[in-house]
Amino acid sequence: MDVISVIRTKRDHGRLTDEQIDWVIDAYTRGEVADEQMSALAMAILLNGMDRAEIARWTAAMIASGERMDFASLPRPTADKHSTGGVGDKITLPLAPLVAACGAAVPQLSGRGLGHTGGTLDKLESIPGWRALLSNDEMMGVLRDVGAVICAAGDGLAPADKKLYALRDVTGTVEAIPLIASSIMSKKIAEGTGSLVLDVKVGSGAFMKNLDDARELASTMVGLGTDHGVRTVALLTGMSTPLGLTAGNALEVRESVEVLAGGGPADVVELTLALAREMLDAAGLKDADPEKALRDGSAMDHWRRMIAAQGGDPDAALPVARERHVVTASATGVLTGLDAYAVGVAAWRLGAGRARKEDPVQAGAGVELHAKPGEQVTAGQPLMTLHTDTPERFAYAIEALDGGVTIEAPGTSFEADPIVLERIA
Amino acid sequence: MDVISVIRTKRDHGRLTDEQIDWVIDAYTRGEVADEQMSALAMAILLNGMDRAEIARWTAAMIASGERMDFASLPRPTADKHSTGGVGDKITLPLAPLVAACGAAVPQLSGRGLGHTGGTLDKLESIPGWRALLSNDEMMGVLRDVGAVICAAGDGLAPADKKLYALRDVTGTVEAIPLIASSIMSKKIAEGTGSLVLDVKVGSGAFMKNLDDARELASTMVGLGTDHGVRTVALLTGMSTPLGLTAGNALEVRESVEVLAGGGPADVVELTLALAREMLDAAGLKDADPEKALRDGSAMDHWRRMIAAQGGDPDAALPVARERHVVTASATGVLTGLDAYAVGVAAWRLGAGRARKEDPVQAGAGVELHAKPGEQVTAGQPLMTLHTDTPERFAYAIEALDGGVTIEAPGTSFEADPIVLERIA
Repeated sequence: MDVISVIRTKRDHGRLTDEQIDWVIDAYTRGEVADEQMSALAMAILLNGMDRAEIARWTAAMIASGERMDFASLPRPTADKHSTGGVGDKITLPLAPLVAACGAAVPQLSGRGLGHTGGTLDKLESIPGWRALLSNDEMMGVLRDVGAVICAAGDGLAPADKKLYALRDVTGTVEAIPLIASSIMSKKIAEGTGSLVLDVKVGSGAFMKNLDDARELASTMVGLGTDHGVRTVALLTGMSTPLGLTAGNALEVRESVEVLAGGGPADVVELTLALAREMLDAAGLKDADPEKALRDGSAMDHWRRMIAAQGGDPDAALPVARERHVVTASATGVLTGLDAYAVGVAAWRLGAGRARKEDPVQAGAGVELHAKPGEQVTAGQPLMTLHTDTPERFAYAIEALDGGVTIEAPGTSFEADPIVLERIA
Repeated sequence: MDVISVIRTKRDHGRLTDEQIDWVIDAYTRGEVADEQMSALAMAILLNGMDRAEIARWTAAMIASGERMDFASLPRPTADKHSTGGVGDKITLPLAPLVAACGAAVPQLSGRGLGHTGGTLDKLESIPGWRALLSNDEMMGVLRDVGAVICAAGDGLAPADKKLYALRDVTGTVEAIPLIASSIMSKKIAEGTGSLVLDVKVGSGAFMKNLDDARELASTMVGLGTDHGVRTVALLTGMSTPLGLTAGNALEVRESVEVLAGGGPADVVELTLALAREMLDAAGLKDADPEKALRDGSAMDHWRRMIAAQGGDPDAALPVARERHVVTASATGVLTGLDAYAVGVAAWRLGAGRARKEDPVQAGAGVELHAKPGEQVTAGQPLMTLHTDTPERFAYAIEALDGGVTIEAPGTSFEADPIVLERIA
């Protein structure tokens, strides 16, 4: 077996055999296949594709590159959620304690943000004292005691994916459905969850810009999960406009706590409940009532215990950015467009996200929205507030917003897209 | 300018701008763009192509990465030849002294073999004492005194190409016409020849397996040369069957000396003369008579002086392999096929070529043919003799020949393809 013949097979539009896939993933993990060889193969996969059987084998080989966790000893059924990433997507924060309050165990291994989409761990790290890094034993302990844990994935899970993901990030080979699907699912399957709900985002602020690509990615992932014995469901959800009214780390924690307190923006509440119902259903808890768990404070109680179990103080004041800048409406009329990508890039440039893995993020930076599409606005009224510790960034953030806000003549009719576009099971 | 946006442009079927090309070649040469990034870009170029203007700029950027030589001080016009590589292709050896004998200066910067095609420098290094590595001053001295020099290209010429060529070799990105054309032409243009004849091989033993690809490569290279003021002509020549009767280093030197002595196989003589006429014509020496130079010993005289000027002894006995194995005809009839690729791989496996750049080659190893397509053969008669110092390789070489020899019923008519298939100027 040699790597050039593997690369040539895919380059020349062929199918990779099981033996080629097993060998190349193992040899890459061991360092026998070099980064420059894997990146050429990744580009050939991006451009020439893989069929379902190849993707399944590729995923299995990545799972086999590391350890597998096992939650069989827990007294509750496990349910996990994965979002492909969007702007203002803080749903994991209220969702994990909510589903735990309804009786499932939620082992939420999460990542950090890169580019214009935020990362769940970055958001939680704005809570004073909170730690993302747990040992496997600590993780099992929190899961057993609280029912939900949100922490960084250990180095032992799918190391082939870890290496390949870092490589794709610097070689322009992120946007390949076979590689995205196998990356997400290898980690989730190795993690050992019994059921999984995928939130596949569609729109300007998502990796998938159109419904066809999102549908293809979702059905590929549902197939992979099902083949590995994980009850898997996907919701396709809109990401043309930011979720909720905040994008940025501490800003999103604050909004999540509002939802757990029974308030919060309607779209965040709706999506949190839709995902909670799917998770509880997949976990076999058909009688659970997540709306009640939000109302009666049990979800909030699980949140507080989950944060405290990882060293965080749920009562501590959250960090606030040192500087603010208010962006106002340029005209009177109906706000018909608030582009998720533009807002995401603005939040990123304000310091909420990072350009490189090793960059720090600002806990208080981000964008706070004062109006959402469909609302009437008056020229000069505040549309959003930009937050940052480094005011020299305001100009770059404002530049990112250029063209991202659409105001049409008063009386223009506007119909919002539904939050959940499709369900794939 | 960042490399991911350059990779994405080509990945998404876009045109690279002049600024993107200049930047990426320079940054790669300096090490700012990493190998894994360049290999992803190379794969995207292989699969999505480059237009003529992109190839021209890519070539110019590779030339600009290093020094340029200048032969303006020579009293004779310069003419160079490049072959895209084939099996038994020893033409440079008789051609360079022949063209020098006719009045041109031939600065032949050559390479070593990799894979099943032989390398000119490997062949000449089988002559005791001969040195491939000359300083620029030594090279100019031999060129001035003898009129022809065959030596290794210095590190200063097109260093971007040197680095990219080594990368393509290990990443399955060799077979891209834009990259092949720019690699060859950047070196030849930087070398500073006034005229250039390209021998673009077509057939099983060549990189280009079909006439359309060869035509595309040839016309791309002719365009690049012409744009840079080099009078450039290409001949498309057949490489379905080996050239001459030998494939292997010392074996090919011996055959070349036969040609210089006025003998040698008809196909080698025909192609040597066809290329010599093109070179002399491109150099403006329209009255030169290369056939006479072979007959009257002046070509042989230039050969002996060229070899001696680089430390070689033209009278020394050439190395002979320690072991031989005769392959016989399996049937009586007409030899209608002798596959160049099969013979090339057999010679390579016998030790004439190398699998990796740092491997040594055997001077005496190779294949000696006793019959060529079109000849009558009798079952049991010797078809070829295999030569090697390491007899355990015979079995691998014989395996490579499996299916490479075709004998049809006695009386089967056979018409050989012409040597020169097309001329592109």
